[in-house]
Amino acid sequence: MMNSNLGGKALEFLGRSFIAGTRISRGDAVFFGTSASTGERLEPAFTGASMQDVHDAASAASAAFPVFSKTSARVRARFLKAIASRLEKLGPELVSRAMAETALPQARLEGELARTCGQLRLFATMVEDGSWQHARIDRALPERKPLPRPDLRSVLSPLGPVAVFGASNFPLAFSVAGGDTASALAAGNPVVVKAHPAHPGTSELAAFAITHAVAECELPPGVFSMLFDDGIAAAQQLVQHPAIEAVAFTGSHRAGRALMDLCAARPRPIPCFTEMSSLNPVFILPGALAGDPRGGARGLHGSFTLGAGQFCTKPGLVFLPETDGVDAFREELRTLSSANAPFTMLTPGIANAYHRGLEDRRKLDLDTVAASVSASPQSHAVLHEASLETFQKQSALHEELFGPTTLLISWRNRERMLQAAEALEGHLTATLLGDEADLAVYADLIAILERKVGRLLVNGFPTGVEVSHAMVHGGPYPATSDSRFTSVGSQAIYRFVRPVCYQNFPQAALPEALRDENALNIMRLVDGVLTREPL
Amino acid sequence: MMNSNLGGKALEFLGRSFIAGTRISRGDAVFFGTSASTGERLEPAFTGASMQDVHDAASAASAAFPVFSKTSARVRARFLKAIASRLEKLGPELVSRAMAETALPQARLEGELARTCGQLRLFATMVEDGSWQHARIDRALPERKPLPRPDLRSVLSPLGPVAVFGASNFPLAFSVAGGDTASALAAGNPVVVKAHPAHPGTSELAAFAITHAVAECELPPGVFSMLFDDGIAAAQQLVQHPAIEAVAFTGSHRAGRALMDLCAARPRPIPCFTEMSSLNPVFILPGALAGDPRGGARGLHGSFTLGAGQFCTKPGLVFLPETDGVDAFREELRTLSSANAPFTMLTPGIANAYHRGLEDRRKLDLDTVAASVSASPQSHAVLHEASLETFQKQSALHEELFGPTTLLISWRNRERMLQAAEALEGHLTATLLGDEADLAVYADLIAILERKVGRLLVNGFPTGVEVSHAMVHGGPYPATSDSRFTSVGSQAIYRFVRPVCYQNFPQAALPEALRDENALNIMRLVDGVLTREPL
Repeated sequence: MMNSNLGGKALEFLGRSFIAGTRISRGDAVFFGTSASTGERLEPAFTGASMQDVHDAASAASAAFPVFSKTSARVRARFLKAIASRLEKLGPELVSRAMAETALPQARLEGELARTCGQLRLFATMVEDGSWQHARIDRALPERKPLPRPDLRSVLSPLGPVAVFGASNFPLAFSVAGGDTASALAAGNPVVVKAHPAHPGTSELAAFAITHAVAECELPPGVFSMLFDDGIAAAQQLVQHPAIEAVAFTGSHRAGRALMDLCAARPRPIPCFTEMSSLNPVFILPGALAGDPRGGARGLHGSFTLGAGQFCTKPGLVFLPETDGVDAFREELRTLSSANAPFTMLTPGIANAYHRGLEDRRKLDLDTVAASVSASPQSHAVLHEASLETFQKQSALHEELFGPTTLLISWRNRERMLQAAEALEGHLTATLLGDEADLAVYADLIAILERKVGRLLVNGFPTGVEVSHAMVHGGPYPATSDSRFTSVGSQAIYRFVRPVCYQNFPQAALPEALRDENALNIMRLVDGVLTREPL
Repeated sequence: MMNSNLGGKALEFLGRSFIAGTRISRGDAVFFGTSASTGERLEPAFTGASMQDVHDAASAASAAFPVFSKTSARVRARFLKAIASRLEKLGPELVSRAMAETALPQARLEGELARTCGQLRLFATMVEDGSWQHARIDRALPERKPLPRPDLRSVLSPLGPVAVFGASNFPLAFSVAGGDTASALAAGNPVVVKAHPAHPGTSELAAFAITHAVAECELPPGVFSMLFDDGIAAAQQLVQHPAIEAVAFTGSHRAGRALMDLCAARPRPIPCFTEMSSLNPVFILPGALAGDPRGGARGLHGSFTLGAGQFCTKPGLVFLPETDGVDAFREELRTLSSANAPFTMLTPGIANAYHRGLEDRRKLDLDTVAASVSASPQSHAVLHEASLETFQKQSALHEELFGPTTLLISWRNRERMLQAAEALEGHLTATLLGDEADLAVYADLIAILERKVGRLLVNGFPTGVEVSHAMVHGGPYPATSDSRFTSVGSQAIYRFVRPVCYQNFPQAALPEALRDENALNIMRLVDGVLTREPL
């Protein structure tokens, strides 16, 4: 069952987990990838990880940590870039297999691959720059009265092995070699990925790239492992394993909360970042309707149907004032939504959940504009409309519904609309469409939304999450488990580090970032002042 | 039962909670402060908070948040400094009442008051400086292919109302106006304190100072409330209240874990930082024993008996090699420990727990050097010694024992000592005593300890926690609930903030820290480069 030869051709799928550089899966369960378009089984068979496999992967990660956590910025940056290069080399195979497993179009997957590689290189650049570590130095004050101050220096250090969960809706950028893995590795943490069973072949190819990069950079093989399982046993065991120090997940509220609860209930609780559920409310303001109502409708339609509405940031809720232009907006949106060709969903499970969710909404007697719903895995765009009062009464309308649908909430009373905004749960994003006058008149709405979301947009749409330094892909629960962090952008690294302080340490025993000479030329907080000067 | 007149003399204790500027306690339970030295009841009676009081305090905090979170840095800095000034004005009364309630000596409490005020002013300075907010700007790239980049800007924003728990062992610096309150307020979060019942009078005076500072700065009264309760009902209700967004606690492992579990089990879980339990291991290295063994013993003795051993950072575990000088070290430590006058503990509860813990250790048949243990609240210094093997077998020896005692673990086999270090749980600190040669020879020990603690010290002692920028008073569980944060020093603010991103916002609608002109002159990350330049 073991094959430690990783030199074979990329396309020779082995269907086995990657345990610290070896290919092994000793579980009983076997599963297959399926074509998202046809439902056909795709070769090969994937064997699930056994309990021993999970233990071996976590233990190998723990064993690799002392070495990997001490690697230089140069080595870690080279490693991240090597992963990106190897993913690019596998590009055609990766895209082709991902197309088969997800039915996402080629251009989207090519873009996602570019984004994934760009993300790895962004972290490489940040690691090379070094200032992300927040080095702080408070120099000794031996003459201070009544007590002298010792020399104190702190720097961010990696937490330890991180368990990463692949997401179904981004088979590259939020999966095996995605942002969670990139940010955890950048900080110096080994990673154990639980591959998403909706795209096992894509996962195998990405793991292949990372495993080769580990070998190329002569890192301990335990720096990366990946486990296959189409059930929940491996996941449960992994997040409870004593060697795992943090968890990162993108997916449903139910699964994310289950992981949070498992992490919190451990004898030794660990940080668990889950990105889960978001309606991404959009507030159309009067100026937008007075200006270009049909343009706004086209933008919104493009956003809520993008990727068949299977984005974490899909706008699922649209607040619409009954002011001039609203009829044109509504008409354009209805026309576009009715004219959509059917969408192929990522998995039959997602398609079924979408159809069930629509059925539930239908029972609420909402105003519906919809093409007929076909059999799984095909789905149609559906547009619902409800009054503010119905929205506030029906808790089901406050839950995320993955798929190409959105809900219009029309309002006439400004105070009631503000009350509804105040009653919103946490979301990843909130969007305002309007002119400058609107933003002044609705400053109170903006102030409410700032407390509800991780990202606020003006005159744009929330789908399309830029990977950059200022991006926040986070927000209050249930958008994520912990609003203090983001899973996209360079700030994602802060999920996986902790400050360590060195008191009265001689120079030679200090981490390089904290030594007097500042050979890394990083920005440091010295006696409360940010500077790159050596001491 | 209500008295909204806060203008009376400081010494007129009312014994009622502070609910958003009013003095009210509608609970059934009444309790008294007690003299820690004599056990005598101290006037007045304190009435516990009712469920309605808890709800009112949390709701008022929530109502104050929109205004307080938007106050300028100047206003918040003035507020923090006003609290410090008012505490200083109450100095003699505060110290005198705290002496009665805790039996801590006057000089210690005067020092603690100075530390508490210095802490408030440190946060004021940081808030005025502004760079702590980590403003980030990624400018729009409208010509980028294949897709343009929008303008993205992020900044740290306050979480919302924070529940703070006063600690028994630092009636000023870790209580009502202590580091948790200072850092939460500095970030713009209202605070609801649950006063520790071991020093209710001290708490009332500190709350009096804060409430007056709120009024002086014309802030919404809900910015600060304080609840009395000598049971656990108010605490439980407070951390589960929907308006509370974060919790900060310093105390026992049992109570801290209970709060963590309550926060994690909420319908909407919230961040909970608890600082709980630490043995603060000290590793005496051969060079220290060869150099000045008696000096090392004196320093250690001073540290583990400081404040009757009731410090979070008390060294409770001392690894001792059987090398030259060890006999002198041991003899000096035994002599000093045997000669200690009895200590008065903070509370009868702490004294009883200490005596029970010593009793448990006695059953383990350790080598004991101890004066006889007197009746509560008086306690004697006790020194135990155990072999490495006994220490590794007995899990009870891995638990914190508050009080003037420590445990020597002698070792001869370097590998076994390293294994014992590797098996340690998380602690706040680890200390090495040795010369430069030791630090090179024991680099592997340092590498192990870096993964176990928040602060590493060389040739010092862990008691005495500097309040500065580089301090880390944190560490892996069970030292704290989340090793990514600290409760002491300016980094403590990061427990209570989250990043918020603004996409494509017009200048006028942006927070001041993110506007092009950088009127605040703060350090910002602009397109990945740290700069104070305007855009």
